Amino acid sequence: MGKVKVSLAGGSGYAGGELLRLLLYHPFVEIGQITSERHKGKPVSSVHPNLRKRCDATFCSLGELKPCDFLFLSLPHGESMNSFPKFSSLSEKIIDLSADFRLRDPAGYRKWYGVNHPHPDLLERFVYGIPELHREEIRRANYVSGAGCNATAVILALYPFFKHRLTIEDRTVVEVKNGSSEGGNSPGEASHHPERSGCVRSYKPTEHRHVAEMVQELRAGSDAPGKIHFPATSIDMVRGVLATCHVFPREEIGEKEIWKLYREEYGREPFIRIVKEREGIYRYPEPKLLSGTNFCDIGFEKDADSSRIVVIGAIDNLMKGAAGQALQSFNLMNGFEEKTGLEFPGLHPA
Amino acid sequence: MGKVKVSLAGGSGYAGGELLRLLLYHPFVEIGQITSERHKGKPVSSVHPNLRKRCDATFCSLGELKPCDFLFLSLPHGESMNSFPKFSSLSEKIIDLSADFRLRDPAGYRKWYGVNHPHPDLLERFVYGIPELHREEIRRANYVSGAGCNATAVILALYPFFKHRLTIEDRTVVEVKNGSSEGGNSPGEASHHPERSGCVRSYKPTEHRHVAEMVQELRAGSDAPGKIHFPATSIDMVRGVLATCHVFPREEIGEKEIWKLYREEYGREPFIRIVKEREGIYRYPEPKLLSGTNFCDIGFEKDADSSRIVVIGAIDNLMKGAAGQALQSFNLMNGFEEKTGLEFPGLHPA
Amino acid sequence: MGKVKVSLAGGSGYAGGELLRLLLYHPFVEIGQITSERHKGKPVSSVHPNLRKRCDATFCSLGELKPCDFLFLSLPHGESMNSFPKFSSLSEKIIDLSADFRLRDPAGYRKWYGVNHPHPDLLERFVYGIPELHREEIRRANYVSGAGCNATAVILALYPFFKHRLTIEDRTVVEVKNGSSEGGNSPGEASHHPERSGCVRSYKPTEHRHVAEMVQELRAGSDAPGKIHFPATSIDMVRGVLATCHVFPREEIGEKEIWKLYREEYGREPFIRIVKEREGIYRYPEPKLLSGTNFCDIGFEKDADSSRIVVIGAIDNLMKGAAGQALQSFNLMNGFEEKTGLEFPGLHPA
Amino acid sequence: MGKVKVSLAGGSGYAGGELLRLLLYHPFVEIGQITSERHKGKPVSSVHPNLRKRCDATFCSLGELKPCDFLFLSLPHGESMNSFPKFSSLSEKIIDLSADFRLRDPAGYRKWYGVNHPHPDLLERFVYGIPELHREEIRRANYVSGAGCNATAVILALYPFFKHRLTIEDRTVVEVKNGSSEGGNSPGEASHHPERSGCVRSYKPTEHRHVAEMVQELRAGSDAPGKIHFPATSIDMVRGVLATCHVFPREEIGEKEIWKLYREEYGREPFIRIVKEREGIYRYPEPKLLSGTNFCDIGFEKDADSSRIVVIGAIDNLMKGAAGQALQSFNLMNGFEEKTGLEFPGLHPA
Repeated sequence: MGKVKVSLAGGSGYAGGELLRLLLYHPFVEIGQITSERHKGKPVSSVHPNLRKRCDATFCSLGELKPCDFLFLSLPHGESMNSFPKFSSLSEKIIDLSADFRLRDPAGYRKWYGVNHPHPDLLERFVYGIPELHREEIRRANYVSGAGCNATAVILALYPFFKHRLTIEDRTVVEVKNGSSEGGNSPGEASHHPERSGCVRSYKPTEHRHVAEMVQELRAGSDAPGKIHFPATSIDMVRGVLATCHVFPREEIGEKEIWKLYREEYGREPFIRIVKEREGIYRYPEPKLLSGTNFCDIGFEKDADSSRIVVIGAIDNLMKGAAGQALQSFNLMNGFEEKTGLEFPGLHPA
Repeated sequence: MGKVKVSLAGGSGYAGGELLRLLLYHPFVEIGQITSERHKGKPVSSVHPNLRKRCDATFCSLGELKPCDFLFLSLPHGESMNSFPKFSSLSEKIIDLSADFRLRDPAGYRKWYGVNHPHPDLLERFVYGIPELHREEIRRANYVSGAGCNATAVILALYPFFKHRLTIEDRTVVEVKNGSSEGGNSPGEASHHPERSGCVRSYKPTEHRHVAEMVQELRAGSDAPGKIHFPATSIDMVRGVLATCHVFPREEIGEKEIWKLYREEYGREPFIRIVKEREGIYRYPEPKLLSGTNFCDIGFEKDADSSRIVVIGAIDNLMKGAAGQALQSFNLMNGFEEKTGLEFPGLHPA
Repeated sequence: MGKVKVSLAGGSGYAGGELLRLLLYHPFVEIGQITSERHKGKPVSSVHPNLRKRCDATFCSLGELKPCDFLFLSLPHGESMNSFPKFSSLSEKIIDLSADFRLRDPAGYRKWYGVNHPHPDLLERFVYGIPELHREEIRRANYVSGAGCNATAVILALYPFFKHRLTIEDRTVVEVKNGSSEGGNSPGEASHHPERSGCVRSYKPTEHRHVAEMVQELRAGSDAPGKIHFPATSIDMVRGVLATCHVFPREEIGEKEIWKLYREEYGREPFIRIVKEREGIYRYPEPKLLSGTNFCDIGFEKDADSSRIVVIGAIDNLMKGAAGQALQSFNLMNGFEEKTGLEFPGLHPA
Repeated sequence: MGKVKVSLAGGSGYAGGELLRLLLYHPFVEIGQITSERHKGKPVSSVHPNLRKRCDATFCSLGELKPCDFLFLSLPHGESMNSFPKFSSLSEKIIDLSADFRLRDPAGYRKWYGVNHPHPDLLERFVYGIPELHREEIRRANYVSGAGCNATAVILALYPFFKHRLTIEDRTVVEVKNGSSEGGNSPGEASHHPERSGCVRSYKPTEHRHVAEMVQELRAGSDAPGKIHFPATSIDMVRGVLATCHVFPREEIGEKEIWKLYREEYGREPFIRIVKEREGIYRYPEPKLLSGTNFCDIGFEKDADSSRIVVIGAIDNLMKGAAGQALQSFNLMNGFEEKTGLEFPGLHPA
């Protein structure tokens, strides 16, 4: 198979670096250009030290970008939407890892991001990049938008219930625990080690932006937007998202039926594992096992004293929550086997 | 004021060690005996290395216990209930830190602990040891039971709402994040550092024992036992409990009214601080600030898109969740100023 | 005893905050003013959240400082030396926590700090603030300089050997492990949590500034300056210094003689503990036990296969390495019992 | 190329699990049997949860082992030496990851391990498994012994200096920082999370067993055994070894000459990177970048004030310090490209 020439606009951030790590080992990829305004002219490995002796490329600036077969955008929020015409003139196929094209409704950008989207007409040309929900659309798409990391974990955990409308949807409460890499690589008081180490910081008890994506994907067609109750808590961890989701079914559902529901939905998915064991310390999904992998592990448990069902989803925010999932879409868009370049199984212990 | 001669049955665990640290600095306490079956004959500081050069006592065995003015029990669950007659013959006043006398209803012991309580008649003689709820009873009590650490954080966070029955109680979802010291000082696979480090382990997504205490204290008189939805997640932290509580009011309540509610209930409490700031990284309660202190910090936030209110409670599980709260009760039972020996403000950074 | 009115110039940093925590509980201190240029007008507890409900003071600016009985300076390096005439006009007695008056030889400032000291004549009026070495001078001093945290751990660990010139001094190799709070509270790439977490970063394999203090105090009168081999490594910890010192004696010395040597030097010291046990996981000094305390724990071990002796020293860098040691000097300068306000024994577990 | 049928005796430990992860992705390996006495009959993924959906093998017992093309031994120390005749009857080629065949001199087993080696004649038939030192011997060997993790880091860091006898060898002081996975997967007080978290524990200030390997490999032919001064300190990290080595040259050596020395020795090595940058937070080797990789990163710095040279080596103890290095030898013994199956570059951030 011929190689695809791939460029990356915005290669100095954590998600960009992770994507680069994956692209370097992809058998059908030839890496084109990698941009960074701040680091242009410097070796890529000076910013991503794990790529020493593996990558001898140098950052160029956005202005130097040339046409390529495939373009990834991993720019600060707002830059993709503002410069999209330029990017689309360089490459027919684009995956944008930012939030700029995630929402289909332009009103969502005003409400959650405080901006008027400059290209609202483009929104419907982007497919929301969770292959487990939109595989066939992604295969045919020219433009795919990355999904938020928290949104990915929550949507994948809850999709089987919401798809079949089995729950009282606005009773859903989702508690997400996050690592520090989610905040990106810019230092600040919140990420200062003496403050961030050992913390259990309530990040967004209410009104987290990712709610918009969850509602869009889980409650399509529903009339009660916004009512997935979603707080996020930052803990002492670098990578990882754990979503603990409490759902309340319309009618009593037993564990066997839940097994069946998830097996039907995800039984053939290459990156979803149902983790539900009788014993051991890893009987529920655990993000620390997933660092560097593209897995979303999902588990569940029914409360004996009430109708409540707990669904637990875990991912690596930089992989299934960003770069890995983007590469999964890339594989689909190019007709490659979906797992190509995404086979690392994770470390234990770690 | 004369000194109170205090003995401690079960002094080698984490809660016992913490209590000992506090007793050593209490101006009106004379330490009597400290027992440990496993370490009898050894210096206390060989087990509690922070007490080197501060405590020259030696562990004795339970059988050697002599009468004293006040007895603390910090024994493995089940031992207090089995040997209580012996203990009550040695001291008129007793605080038990275990779960053995926390529940008023003997049926609770069968359901949650799988035992028939050997002295069900004693249960009503114990006061549940959260002074903010039972101060006057504790002052007059001879027997006080410690409260569970998770239960303490959740009960204190939610009490103002439940006391006035302002919420749809069985919709309450409480997510607790725990440190590893909660599991005590016995090593095991779950606490093995390579496994526990960096983990985000769903400990009890359903059916955590502490629910019994929460329901007993928060829903006294209610007809729907068991329906506080309470999962616990173990994170990479040694001390600390963060309870993120989602409550749904019967009628819309604004933040000003919530302020008023909490100020009325807790405005004069020496160990409760309302933490709700407009800015900064510590605008919500943070357990890492509370290590070694007896504070319960409580914050809240109302969701703009729904009726949901998030109430956040933070404590140090070994202090306000165990030894500190026990000493607070001790002070009340002896007529001492409630804060005596509990003034350490905590460290920052930590 | 009458209270001493104490002001603090530079109260927003970690050392300043720690000092403030101590001063608030000191029975003979009345807190005067606390300055911060960046936070003037704001409550102290907005910067030091552990002091909520314990301190209702507000920061003022340096320009507003009034005369007081005692002045602590905890300013960025360079500010104390530049503005000292102003400070000395406000208070007769001053302790400076910065490095500005630590070295007696002005040439040291050129070599290690790259500045010409503006008041070289003042250097000899400052006593180097390690009470275990300079207790009587400190009692009589008006000006005391704080000691560096790494320097404190190393000097206290090695002083008995160097005082009696028992070792081949320039063979000494000292490996120090540091926490992140040593770098202060300004965020930067080096302290960004995703980078700092889990790191084992060689900070200064050679030419660390604190060597100057070590040589000054340990090798006074010697002819070979600079030759204490001192690298520092930053690890995933917030507070704490562990110094592992390898010394090579001029003549074979056995463990009994070393015991005697340290007991003679430190046997009556209130804040030095010899930690050397036959068994257990805390048989050597461990900084995690010392958070919030003023202890310096020292242990040692002789190699069976060579003449090498390992001396291990542990402190909390913000306490015995900064604020605690400063308060110890303050107590001496004011005729208070040396341990006043410094009795917190530390937490276990932590 | 035909596949090699590989069995693994002792597959439930951390090193065994890591080896299994690597073997599963090796293009020329067919996995035969995997033994565990404790877990026989259970799925391998119940012990190594990262291998879920990647490995469907089940543990068998040692007694069930059948002949194979290649046998790895990853058993508790002592078992390989005691049962070696059995293992050598099953496979012509064997790599043993334990310490049982690392030392060439049987006296070393008495001194450091307290046992009389049952098969001293076999010791010379084993090659010490560091390919950078013994590549050609390994290619031709039937039996290879794994190298200790600390030993690997120190030997690789110092080999260029020792090979050319450029230093005063018995002045060398090596400080190693270790993660908790080095202790294996059996829980105990030392690895109990509340005690191990945040610790800086002096593990072996003197007389660490790995000294024997260092001396054997670095000082072959020398007359002063035992005098590499090597203390180890356990820190809050799961994987990783950082060795900070202080060497004192016989004659002054400048940094350019050191560059040359290391480039000549290691310039073509696939798994050794010289890490020495002018700026940035990763200018020295950092173990956290190496998790899951087979790299040994080496850096150095010359002290301006003395002859001291600091050489810093970093590895992942389970990879280059155990399973990865064993697979590297396996590749050599089978004529495969040395990097096969070892190409994971590590994660950043992590």
